[in-house]
Amino acid sequence: MQYATPEDAEAAFYHAFQHADLAAMMDVWADREFIECIHPLSGRVRGRSAIEASWQRIFSSGQQLRIICSDVHRTQDSLLAIHVLHEHLEIRGANERRAAIVATNIYQLVDGSWRMVLHHASPSASSSGTAAENNAGRQLH
Amino acid sequence: MQYATPEDAEAAFYHAFQHADLAAMMDVWADREFIECIHPLSGRVRGRSAIEASWQRIFSSGQQLRIICSDVHRTQDSLLAIHVLHEHLEIRGANERRAAIVATNIYQLVDGSWRMVLHHASPSASSSGTAAENNAGRQLH
Repeated sequence: MQYATPEDAEAAFYHAFQHADLAAMMDVWADREFIECIHPLSGRVRGRSAIEASWQRIFSSGQQLRIICSDVHRTQDSLLAIHVLHEHLEIRGANERRAAIVATNIYQLVDGSWRMVLHHASPSASSSGTAAENNAGRQLH
Repeated sequence: MQYATPEDAEAAFYHAFQHADLAAMMDVWADREFIECIHPLSGRVRGRSAIEASWQRIFSSGQQLRIICSDVHRTQDSLLAIHVLHEHLEIRGANERRAAIVATNIYQLVDGSWRMVLHHASPSASSSGTAAENNAGRQLH
């Protein structure tokens, strides 16, 4: 696919995420060695094959997800676009849970199409974490 | 100060952070409304005055910090630079602690100087969080 704008690439990213569509997910990512993905409270994952394996693990859980994005804050120049936003995840099923994530998504214009080069996601203060976790987190920084 | 390269701006950022120097810290940040800062497990902080207040709260704790950065992964075009790295924080004193943070730092060339426009920091998998926290985090995404 070609993504004419960073917004198109972002829509494809969240559609693939919500539908556990690995091929569509990897289509959004740039074919570059330097791409990097940070899932919440996980280590850094770098390069296409490692990033693909990380999404495969997530998708293999079979969780039914609904994702709503809000508070999208965008800036860009001619080749790079930065989006910071909240992801509101609803995990459906017997153990229904909600999670609030803050994500930094960076897109690069590569061969005429915008592609993701970085996804950094972490629990936000309004996440379901305990007060103790949040307090510990604040003390870290 | 003028920062000739994103690396210069980054060095000034971590020097200010380690020395709790609020004026030096705010000098690194771009004078733009768009700027955004995400401290570990905290909410998003946007705009200069809110970002300054957040660092003032952190610095007012009087913690003696040592920060070592590693695994710095850089990409940039003519106007934007993206650095992803590990911050290893040592909090000195009676309750000495260590924390591993993953940070995405974005710099923009503004009026001939590189300035920070985004800092997104979150606990990494090798952080001091409990296994349960890390497991919960992984399940979120």
